[in-house]
Amino acid sequence: MLWLFLGGFLALPLLFSLIIQDGLSFLYLTEMLALFAMSIVTLFLCKKPATLTIREAYLIVTLGWVTFSLLGALPFLISRHIPSFTDAFFETVSGFTTTGASILKDIEALPKSLLLWRNMTQWVGGMAVIALAVAVIPFLGIGGMQLFKAEVPGPIKDKLSPRISETAKILWGVYLLFTFAEVALLMVGGLSLFDALCTTFGTLATGGFTPTNKSIAAYSSPFIHYIVTLFMFLAGTNFSLHFWALRGKVRYYFYNPEFRFYCLVTLIASLLIMIARLAHGEVFTEEFFRSTLFQTVSILTTTGFVTHDYETWPFFTQIILIALMFIGGCTSSTGGGIKNIRVLVSLKFIGTELKKLFQPHGVFPLWVGKDCLPEGVVLNILSFIALYILIFFIGVMAMTALGLDMDTAVGSVAATLGNVGPGIGTVGPMENYAHLPLLGKLILSFLMIVGRLEIFTVLVLFTRQYWR
Amino acid sequence: MLWLFLGGFLALPLLFSLIIQDGLSFLYLTEMLALFAMSIVTLFLCKKPATLTIREAYLIVTLGWVTFSLLGALPFLISRHIPSFTDAFFETVSGFTTTGASILKDIEALPKSLLLWRNMTQWVGGMAVIALAVAVIPFLGIGGMQLFKAEVPGPIKDKLSPRISETAKILWGVYLLFTFAEVALLMVGGLSLFDALCTTFGTLATGGFTPTNKSIAAYSSPFIHYIVTLFMFLAGTNFSLHFWALRGKVRYYFYNPEFRFYCLVTLIASLLIMIARLAHGEVFTEEFFRSTLFQTVSILTTTGFVTHDYETWPFFTQIILIALMFIGGCTSSTGGGIKNIRVLVSLKFIGTELKKLFQPHGVFPLWVGKDCLPEGVVLNILSFIALYILIFFIGVMAMTALGLDMDTAVGSVAATLGNVGPGIGTVGPMENYAHLPLLGKLILSFLMIVGRLEIFTVLVLFTRQYWR
Repeated sequence: MLWLFLGGFLALPLLFSLIIQDGLSFLYLTEMLALFAMSIVTLFLCKKPATLTIREAYLIVTLGWVTFSLLGALPFLISRHIPSFTDAFFETVSGFTTTGASILKDIEALPKSLLLWRNMTQWVGGMAVIALAVAVIPFLGIGGMQLFKAEVPGPIKDKLSPRISETAKILWGVYLLFTFAEVALLMVGGLSLFDALCTTFGTLATGGFTPTNKSIAAYSSPFIHYIVTLFMFLAGTNFSLHFWALRGKVRYYFYNPEFRFYCLVTLIASLLIMIARLAHGEVFTEEFFRSTLFQTVSILTTTGFVTHDYETWPFFTQIILIALMFIGGCTSSTGGGIKNIRVLVSLKFIGTELKKLFQPHGVFPLWVGKDCLPEGVVLNILSFIALYILIFFIGVMAMTALGLDMDTAVGSVAATLGNVGPGIGTVGPMENYAHLPLLGKLILSFLMIVGRLEIFTVLVLFTRQYWR
Repeated sequence: MLWLFLGGFLALPLLFSLIIQDGLSFLYLTEMLALFAMSIVTLFLCKKPATLTIREAYLIVTLGWVTFSLLGALPFLISRHIPSFTDAFFETVSGFTTTGASILKDIEALPKSLLLWRNMTQWVGGMAVIALAVAVIPFLGIGGMQLFKAEVPGPIKDKLSPRISETAKILWGVYLLFTFAEVALLMVGGLSLFDALCTTFGTLATGGFTPTNKSIAAYSSPFIHYIVTLFMFLAGTNFSLHFWALRGKVRYYFYNPEFRFYCLVTLIASLLIMIARLAHGEVFTEEFFRSTLFQTVSILTTTGFVTHDYETWPFFTQIILIALMFIGGCTSSTGGGIKNIRVLVSLKFIGTELKKLFQPHGVFPLWVGKDCLPEGVVLNILSFIALYILIFFIGVMAMTALGLDMDTAVGSVAATLGNVGPGIGTVGPMENYAHLPLLGKLILSFLMIVGRLEIFTVLVLFTRQYWR
């Protein structure tokens, strides 16, 4: 069924390719037909299972992302625009996980229909992430999210699974609406339909792919930058809140503790970066303000667009940006990272632990908004963060073992695990991932999937218990 | 009372100074008398409080370390061998917290009695750390340690506070015994009494000060290196286990899950470093083996002695060493860092969380050795680790804000918060902390105290609740 979807999505580059006659139409058509054929054969061969077990859900989600990436890599491979299998796989994983890390040195050398396909992988990935966040993660109770399915004022408060798929469809509607809105606004700002489409796909998925070599810096108009900043910020917000806002309940944004925290982080990080840049001798201009805000939102929402080379800023700002890579977006958004709610809960938790030191037998409930969190959920959240940091550390070890310097290792692992895209060091905003060793690219591809699927979903597949 | 102790400890450099006639005798004598006078006046002025409240305990512990550092800095300041107040304070904090970070560019230029005093601050600090670990931390229930006072086969299993001070005295006996043993062995290895004393003081406190510019590399004898490695390892182990071993119950070492984990970490880290060095083109020799083992044990136990410049090793080994700085020693040892038991518990906890994903309603008790940990203790431990990482991150931000590069910021904060000593970057094993900005030295001094007092002890003093 998933293949059927993917095949359907290939229609857009096919159409585009037919229009501009770049000779790739036949390729897309063949793959589309092959996918349809495969899907139909599989549907006939397998009996439809009545219900999904928890175990099956883990496997399907992970395999879904891996097969999508393998199949999505075919146009790059067959057209020989990315001849190496590892590179093509890396690029497609980076697309479907909405990361935006690229191995392309000259993006503009690719045919436009292929670039459209490249950005579509992100847009499709973004839809899948919303479905995952609404239907799978809370259902499986990963990282404390069992609570937040009820906590967030979701469109339908019921927990039955057919209703959950309804919720996903409603949020996809919001996603589509935002897509049209951003494309329209970018075209008002002077972009071509192609550029506007690609940029929008990269924005709403918090992906970060662009059809240009210089990322968003290729478009000089400040209006474009502000529009992209706005939509990145929206894409990193819980989509249920947008749904309610569209229904006239704008106040729900401010009732939501995660959204308030997300705004606070954006504000504090932008201010700190501005202060550091000013202290470093820069002058306050509109461009200064815009680039700081743009990069803060781009990294926090784990989009990874670039308008300004942040590696020229003081070291301090890079620590802030790495911190933002860890925090990431909100729940039920397309953003990656640890997620704001988990960071907020763990900070509040440290506060209650300090109180306990005075009154060892006191009971200090942990409130988030109107909800009192049970200890089990707090433990889930802390274990998620612990595992996130552990995997980060193991990833950095692996990358340094391959001979990378520490900055690059830290930057590449933080940027792929958090699904950001550009890191620091030699994988910074002005560079790409092309020069990394083959094994390094495979490890980072794995980290992108692990990060995207909230770690536990993938890791359970490696436990003995799972296969028993 | 504490001042009285400190005054008493000044007797050793005084005696030594008298013997070698370096003109500093008068200084030590004056300070000793001043301390005695101060103590007696304070004892007369204050009524002895019947019992200590929890609040008072926090304040006394923190103030104890700060005043010790201020008073201990006087010989350096008055003798004008460290003319700057910040530098002298940094050096003494580094001593009493058994860190071993130094601002001295030419250590050997100092008079020997002053060097003896410098290393004595570490030895005294080590005793204080044992008292803290046995009597204060478990009593206050900091970072989950309320459990491990009972878990470890302590000399006296009763929990009444007079018995606790008995425990501390017994463990001090072990500490003294080890001191004599190491001094004797080092002298057998060819060191002078002065060198042997200083090295022993630095070893058993897991401090890392030496009276030489080249640290332990100044002594070329492999025998000395192995002896120091052994005693560093012992100093990083729970002293209660040594007590039992001395009573003939050597098997208690292997019953102790923390000790087993500590051995495992040492083994894995040494092997990984060896493999990385071999892959980097080095040849396996006795020196290769010795230096790897020495540096692994030195950093893991948070001692910070150096026999080999580990910054010449591949990047990978430095990530391992930083990981070791975070792990640190065992409970009731003189080692710093997060402590092995907390790392072990959080790893086991991640394991049980993975199991919960299959059986969301299953109950998975967390076993450590023969003990089943209650959820509250697990939460305490996780909050400790979360806070440790948070403070690390804030520290790195602060240091980069002062203009340090990222490697140096990460290295200096990890090495001071974990009470290790030498870090990486420009505060590496062949360098010192002299070139850091004044504010940076004060921040790192604060981090040394925060790390040594298990974070919460200091942080509660900064809460509104405390002063209410």
